[in-house]
Amino acid sequence: VRSRAAILDAARSLLVREGPGAVTHQRVAQEAGVGRATVYRHWPSADKLLLEVMEGADLPFFKNPETPLRPWLRRELRALADELAAPAAAAFSLTLMLSALWDSDIAARRDQSLATIVSRLDAALTPAMTRGELHTTTPVPELVSLLLGPIVYHTAMQATPVSDPYLDRIINTLGTWT
Amino acid sequence: VRSRAAILDAARSLLVREGPGAVTHQRVAQEAGVGRATVYRHWPSADKLLLEVMEGADLPFFKNPETPLRPWLRRELRALADELAAPAAAAFSLTLMLSALWDSDIAARRDQSLATIVSRLDAALTPAMTRGELHTTTPVPELVSLLLGPIVYHTAMQATPVSDPYLDRIINTLGTWT
Repeated sequence: VRSRAAILDAARSLLVREGPGAVTHQRVAQEAGVGRATVYRHWPSADKLLLEVMEGADLPFFKNPETPLRPWLRRELRALADELAAPAAAAFSLTLMLSALWDSDIAARRDQSLATIVSRLDAALTPAMTRGELHTTTPVPELVSLLLGPIVYHTAMQATPVSDPYLDRIINTLGTWT
Repeated sequence: VRSRAAILDAARSLLVREGPGAVTHQRVAQEAGVGRATVYRHWPSADKLLLEVMEGADLPFFKNPETPLRPWLRRELRALADELAAPAAAAFSLTLMLSALWDSDIAARRDQSLATIVSRLDAALTPAMTRGELHTTTPVPELVSLLLGPIVYHTAMQATPVSDPYLDRIINTLGTWT
């Protein structure tokens, strides 16, 4: 059990420092201070080790929505934008997206993460529409892309911080708030 | 010269089929039908080979804006969304973003690509604001994230096609169109 945890820590650290290409049996064994055979015994393939590293990443966003929704949404988006600005989070997200193109287990994991976000935001946005706080005819999955797309593009791609006024502009794109 | 082109073709094909991890001297040499020494002679590092493959990817978007702007913008965004829906384009973009986290040459290439897009969209949007077609107080780099973020998120991450009505909703988020 201890070597398992040490191997996962070593793989996580190599991913963040050098990218997914560094997560090989040899490098992970060296970094964890265990034999290569031990790494092979737990994870016969390096891809499955990478997958388990990413499964350990929690998504602590958009839980327990509050009424009114807007101040809560603004706080959650602020926390998400700050988290994505950290190189480790960008490394995790982009590795998940890229590896999913060729590995169906990782694609399933990506779909599950994205579905979790859509379902949490649905549980937040739909009641706000019902009680008249937000007026919009845009379906929820597209509302999610309108909210998260600009934040992901601005931070993970353009490497620019998301300002508070810009965050308000993004929230305004969802529809009419009362 | 011929072996150089064959090596670049082989590297491009491996990247699209199996991901950046497959772009090694050994695999590229085998795929191109040349000796490993030939690959090493042209590109001492596999990262630099990957970089040159990505430099060959053209960005044929947002050139030559028209008046009125909106129909032109809609056509350009349609073409971009369709292109990003192809697995090869998603592979190129995500590899560029991910490798940029650890390789400063690739980061410079990413910054150059993104700056090209911002400058082309600036040349399109600013005149539309001046002549009163688009009213907005949002700075151009944030307008670019509002336009491209949802399309990238919806296609490359959620793997969902961008519908025409959704494209119009995205354009509407920029400001007031007259």
